[in-house]
Amino acid sequence: MQIKQILAEALVGEEITVKGWVRTKRVQPNVIFININDGSVIHNIQAVAEPGVIDEDTLKLITTGSCVAITGTLIESKGSGQRVEVQVKTAQVYGTADPEKYPLQPKKHSLEFLREIAHLRPRTNTFSAILRIRHSLAYAIHKYFNDNGFFYLHTPIITGSDAEGAGEMFRVSTLDPKNPPLNEDGSINYKEDFFGKETNLTVSGQLEGELGAMALSKIYTFGPTFRAENSNTARHLAEFWMIEPEVAFYELEDNMRLAEDFTKYVINYALENCADDLAFLENRLKDEEKTKKADERSELALIEKLRFVVDNEYVKLTYTEAIQILLSSKRHKEGKFQYPVQWGIDLQSEHERYLVEKHFKKPVILTNYPKDIKAFYMKLDEDGKTVRAMDVLFPGIGEIIGGSQREDNYEKLLQRTKDVGIHEDTIWWYLETRQFGTAPHSGFGIGFERLVMFVTGMTNIRDVIPFPRTPKSAEF
Amino acid sequence: MQIKQILAEALVGEEITVKGWVRTKRVQPNVIFININDGSVIHNIQAVAEPGVIDEDTLKLITTGSCVAITGTLIESKGSGQRVEVQVKTAQVYGTADPEKYPLQPKKHSLEFLREIAHLRPRTNTFSAILRIRHSLAYAIHKYFNDNGFFYLHTPIITGSDAEGAGEMFRVSTLDPKNPPLNEDGSINYKEDFFGKETNLTVSGQLEGELGAMALSKIYTFGPTFRAENSNTARHLAEFWMIEPEVAFYELEDNMRLAEDFTKYVINYALENCADDLAFLENRLKDEEKTKKADERSELALIEKLRFVVDNEYVKLTYTEAIQILLSSKRHKEGKFQYPVQWGIDLQSEHERYLVEKHFKKPVILTNYPKDIKAFYMKLDEDGKTVRAMDVLFPGIGEIIGGSQREDNYEKLLQRTKDVGIHEDTIWWYLETRQFGTAPHSGFGIGFERLVMFVTGMTNIRDVIPFPRTPKSAEF
Repeated sequence: MQIKQILAEALVGEEITVKGWVRTKRVQPNVIFININDGSVIHNIQAVAEPGVIDEDTLKLITTGSCVAITGTLIESKGSGQRVEVQVKTAQVYGTADPEKYPLQPKKHSLEFLREIAHLRPRTNTFSAILRIRHSLAYAIHKYFNDNGFFYLHTPIITGSDAEGAGEMFRVSTLDPKNPPLNEDGSINYKEDFFGKETNLTVSGQLEGELGAMALSKIYTFGPTFRAENSNTARHLAEFWMIEPEVAFYELEDNMRLAEDFTKYVINYALENCADDLAFLENRLKDEEKTKKADERSELALIEKLRFVVDNEYVKLTYTEAIQILLSSKRHKEGKFQYPVQWGIDLQSEHERYLVEKHFKKPVILTNYPKDIKAFYMKLDEDGKTVRAMDVLFPGIGEIIGGSQREDNYEKLLQRTKDVGIHEDTIWWYLETRQFGTAPHSGFGIGFERLVMFVTGMTNIRDVIPFPRTPKSAEF
Repeated sequence: MQIKQILAEALVGEEITVKGWVRTKRVQPNVIFININDGSVIHNIQAVAEPGVIDEDTLKLITTGSCVAITGTLIESKGSGQRVEVQVKTAQVYGTADPEKYPLQPKKHSLEFLREIAHLRPRTNTFSAILRIRHSLAYAIHKYFNDNGFFYLHTPIITGSDAEGAGEMFRVSTLDPKNPPLNEDGSINYKEDFFGKETNLTVSGQLEGELGAMALSKIYTFGPTFRAENSNTARHLAEFWMIEPEVAFYELEDNMRLAEDFTKYVINYALENCADDLAFLENRLKDEEKTKKADERSELALIEKLRFVVDNEYVKLTYTEAIQILLSSKRHKEGKFQYPVQWGIDLQSEHERYLVEKHFKKPVILTNYPKDIKAFYMKLDEDGKTVRAMDVLFPGIGEIIGGSQREDNYEKLLQRTKDVGIHEDTIWWYLETRQFGTAPHSGFGIGFERLVMFVTGMTNIRDVIPFPRTPKSAEF
């Protein structure tokens, strides 16, 4: 039985066996306390042994980080903070952890240090809580889409097209890197590469997702995506997971409704299913915030911030209206925005957060952005200047979702691909969906790690994925 | 409302709007029939229009492949094969499909041809059925693990180690392919590459999965994996999805129990949730088998084959016992196995299928394989010759799962890595889990596409993934 079940369900008087890793051991003259965790839940179970029950040789091996199996009787607990504890009968050590070498001793470790031992950090409270929440969010996403008639579509990871134009890409190749075959003009002969052409890691599954939606009506992707940007920031990963629903016959308004319903569902799922882990992370965040200056602290505690999303109706307005609000704001007039505000700019996080946290005090969906700051596949508005884009803005982080109604008119889409310099040959299949039974359709993308950051309150994206990939770092 | 709901739930007399793609149109003197499909279900809904209700110009545009919205009254159906049909009031065409150009006309298309138009093939009955089943299997997998206390762990796609030694890998790089930076000895200077070292696409998430299990106890992975093998067969993809559960404190027997319970659950889920699609594919398969010689046809129809797995207890025996059975078999004595049988060989599909289909007539789990034909991380048996491996064998395809108890002893594992030539530096983190709180643990891997092939009865792996990646092919 796992510790989660034992703490929740097992009956006092039952004989049980606990298997897990020792967090702490305290030897007192009349009693020995061993706290054990197996990762199934944030709480430890306390094992209590009378002197002599565990032989001296075994007891020496029971140190922080060692792995044990302890059998005994479940008794009511007074001091452990839990309902029950184990009165030890026998103890077995599966694996030791030399206190001189084991890096996770019971003291505070910096997040930076823990990143260097990403193979062990899931054994800490903070990271096991994050990974359990990450799991619950992933499951909630699959459940939401399944329950709502969406089909999970696995779009390709290796692609032959940079159709999104979304940034620098990783090249995938099996050519001899020292002596690649060359064409007569000296360029690399990718015809001899594994796929017979130049290939890269995908930056988005959206274009292929649209192909699925134009047949199955409602699809979503949930897979890894890649950016070869040399950005060593707390918000960027070279490898991250993305969710992209795409729906035939949805117009922008339907898309907004989906985005609101979806985000509320998954965040509420975490509130209902990860209460203990969220409470732990909320306290962790409070401690962390104490080290910050008063005006840098967040106004909402972690769970308040999640409720802020779940309990409020999202405000919907156009980009143009948002610019007017920002221009009229005291903060703008006093010159307190770091970045300038004017129609046509890409909104900065400070602008987005002002709208959400100060002006509306609700999550916000902005629509109808200038076409020049949005992707080629977004449906052109009738004014010819804006597109049917939407960004969902959350407190603390700003944009969490970007999406749009898609351009479903063949001629307009073709023109836009030419405008932005995408060669027809690389996305003939995408263009064909507009020639054969085209339909209005919409979708959006949400970065999974951004969502996990929001829900866990972690401020560095490297701390919400098990093994982060960043410039100059691909360990483990 | 989607067609699946309309056919199942909508009330006769209701006014409804159907949105989807036209499969066929039949114009008769007194009535027009239009069959529409939206991908939500294998069945079409039939729209019936009296002459004149749809104007001539619109009617001309309603051709196979065009996308329409039809509003009308739901009436009982006599001829459509469904419970209900739509009496048309108004019809709108979203997108046309020029009959001269649209490739999916209502006739039989070869699977080879459909592969060339993978962007459109989800609009066929066969592929929409496969993709819906693929979705249901993926969902069942997440549900099974979630309901059983496993955490979904995203292991890295880009890795710096070929620790599995599982085959040729794809190199991931951002170096200038024509002029890569070189070291003094003429080798490529990967320190200047994006990650500061040579990196590849993962062949398995298992090693990182074990790190998760040694903290959270029960984890699973479900992500893309890659093989750069130049195998142009019906069973190989360069990019495919794999599921890998890993559990602390599980020994081989627990692992077998998990594999049996898991496979039965997901296949049963498909039987319960995809009955219409499975019935369609069963008939498709029967038609296909008619073109084969009698002795090449499968003995079980599709759904029988799935029930064969769900309803039988899996037989468990050792590799050594299996070799004895094969050696004693009439088929071996008559020299009818293509490949030789002797202790130490890697069993071929014909041997595995003989055991499952002829000898036991049940799914089979073989254990304790010779160490020389299995991976370095499998736990050595006491005889020093075999390892605690297990393969699950299914009818029709042979091996569907490979797994093992893992070597949890540091010295033995280190020796095995040296034996097979893996450098300690590349997997120091893996070895450390055996130094710090090691524990018995086990896991297995199942190729998702193999599972989808088994459940759908498709015989070419390119037909069970939306956009297959194979040598010389990475279109879409």
